[in-house]
Amino acid sequence: MTLAVRYTAARTLDTAVAPSTPPGPGEVELAPAYVGICGTDLHIFHGDMDARVAAPAVLGHEMSGRIVRVGPGVEDWQPGDAVTVMPLRWDDTCPACRSGHQHICQHLDFIGIDSPGAMQQRWTVPASTLLRLPDSLPLDLAALVEPTAVAVHDVGRAQVAEGEKAVVVGGGPVGVLIALVARAAGADVRVVELNAHRRLLAEELGLTVWSPGDDDVPALVREWTGDAGADVAFEVSGAAGGVDTAVDVLGVRGRLCLVAIHPRPREVNLHRFFWRELTLVGARLYDRGDFEKAVTLVADGTIPAERLISKVVPLTQAPAAFEALEGGGDVMKILVDCTDDAQGGAV
Amino acid sequence: MTLAVRYTAARTLDTAVAPSTPPGPGEVELAPAYVGICGTDLHIFHGDMDARVAAPAVLGHEMSGRIVRVGPGVEDWQPGDAVTVMPLRWDDTCPACRSGHQHICQHLDFIGIDSPGAMQQRWTVPASTLLRLPDSLPLDLAALVEPTAVAVHDVGRAQVAEGEKAVVVGGGPVGVLIALVARAAGADVRVVELNAHRRLLAEELGLTVWSPGDDDVPALVREWTGDAGADVAFEVSGAAGGVDTAVDVLGVRGRLCLVAIHPRPREVNLHRFFWRELTLVGARLYDRGDFEKAVTLVADGTIPAERLISKVVPLTQAPAAFEALEGGGDVMKILVDCTDDAQGGAV
Repeated sequence: MTLAVRYTAARTLDTAVAPSTPPGPGEVELAPAYVGICGTDLHIFHGDMDARVAAPAVLGHEMSGRIVRVGPGVEDWQPGDAVTVMPLRWDDTCPACRSGHQHICQHLDFIGIDSPGAMQQRWTVPASTLLRLPDSLPLDLAALVEPTAVAVHDVGRAQVAEGEKAVVVGGGPVGVLIALVARAAGADVRVVELNAHRRLLAEELGLTVWSPGDDDVPALVREWTGDAGADVAFEVSGAAGGVDTAVDVLGVRGRLCLVAIHPRPREVNLHRFFWRELTLVGARLYDRGDFEKAVTLVADGTIPAERLISKVVPLTQAPAAFEALEGGGDVMKILVDCTDDAQGGAV
Repeated sequence: MTLAVRYTAARTLDTAVAPSTPPGPGEVELAPAYVGICGTDLHIFHGDMDARVAAPAVLGHEMSGRIVRVGPGVEDWQPGDAVTVMPLRWDDTCPACRSGHQHICQHLDFIGIDSPGAMQQRWTVPASTLLRLPDSLPLDLAALVEPTAVAVHDVGRAQVAEGEKAVVVGGGPVGVLIALVARAAGADVRVVELNAHRRLLAEELGLTVWSPGDDDVPALVREWTGDAGADVAFEVSGAAGGVDTAVDVLGVRGRLCLVAIHPRPREVNLHRFFWRELTLVGARLYDRGDFEKAVTLVADGTIPAERLISKVVPLTQAPAAFEALEGGGDVMKILVDCTDDAQGGAV
């Protein structure tokens, strides 16, 4: 008997027994070990994505685990293999896929939003979504691979080069990961974050962090860059003021990588885009190359994953963890432990 | 005795006798032949740029003419040479210049806005701003080189490639030039323009033109592109609705080249930038390579300059021409003829 965390209605999660079915052709059945709670999961929990999410829905797409069973026709994989999942299924026929951008397929199935996710004790996915984890990488840390892949994709979209100056607006988990990946790419990085707890965490990772409330960010950028402005900015805050800051800090030909979701149109200083020949580039999800690089960065310690994990809760306490996360920014990443052991024999 | 057209106050131009002074070291004195009236000149005329323009100011930066005198140290140029001017002076020391983007120098002197322009019978400029015109190119047509250089720069910034589908939002002079340059680069082009007269002119140049009032532009784009969306859009309208249209028509990884000036912030559908991984790229002015290519495109007839010239007026009638242009879109390009002959002996 296995358990799943289910979204049943706005602000309501439960845990329920989930049936386990044999994997079909080309599929594998996994035993998820750790599953991170993502900002998107919180949006679903708030009821903001009911148009897209069919309740009851199993959430979760940042995961690590082991293979339990493989379906017919699956080669290269064995029960016991440690894996993570790139949670995307595309149709391979739409214009986006035909132009080589499967990760933004016009009919994308994002597993964990559009179809059942990882926050359960057994999870069946296509073998094509799997990535092998090195034996040396603890599974709790491996749950950070998916958000790290987001950061790798964003840094790639922004074409960050060695020696460039980059400002990350928003110091939550994704912002901090972007800062770390950009730093690993050779950039000189500044993080702008409102929340004092998050600033402290980012500083403890060796990042230089500014507070938009206390610091005159544009003046600091002018001083830092010799009046040139930054080469790159990442908008990860999702706030109107974050967009303004990201535009304001850029120098001539600067690139603004848009990471955050802005559900409604935002006022943008287009005159500055014209005047300084700025570029805005949207970045969404990741491709397989990003994911592979993320496995490496987490495994080799470039991403200090253990320091980004604020808390690990057993699956049975996931509903309470979502409610606690409502409070906001005083945590980085919370993991849900799906293993039998973690449920304390209650299963 | 030579004449100049001067902006003296909002909605007021006059013609006045202008003193001719010998060119200094590195300078040349020109006799402007034809000077185009640009949208920016109209903005100045309206009084919108009084913070930047020191009245009385001689306008004009789209020009052709001949050298009258050369100053000390000027080699390679002789009196009588047919030339046009790239009207930019940069400081070569600011961060933009140091990074190789002199055309958007942070202290740029745009000649004809920040310093005296070409709408006069004698005009002294640095020899470094000159480009040679081929003998075969009539000087009236050569006045179209400067706006063509803008279009060349925009098409380059958008990285338009052979076989791509491009939508130009705004079918005034610059929009039509962008459409023609993009077509010459191998793109399949559509122009979106509100004004019926301008639509007709663009159609006469062999362009396919849509009316945002009468046509369902997004539906036409879907049909045209097999539901993929366009590869490139140019926002040349300066209108809020133009920005929306340019964003709406783009397919996955589409590029929006921002050409028009939007003095105030605009609401932009950033979610679509994220969702489709769109790129917005600002484009301003041109560099010398753009200008050289523009000379070629006007000289070889790729740009049918004669068909874009709606009217030629003598310098003495320039003030009336500006007033007539207030009416708006029923003309493309009006040239001011600065030659002695054109003034009908009145000078």
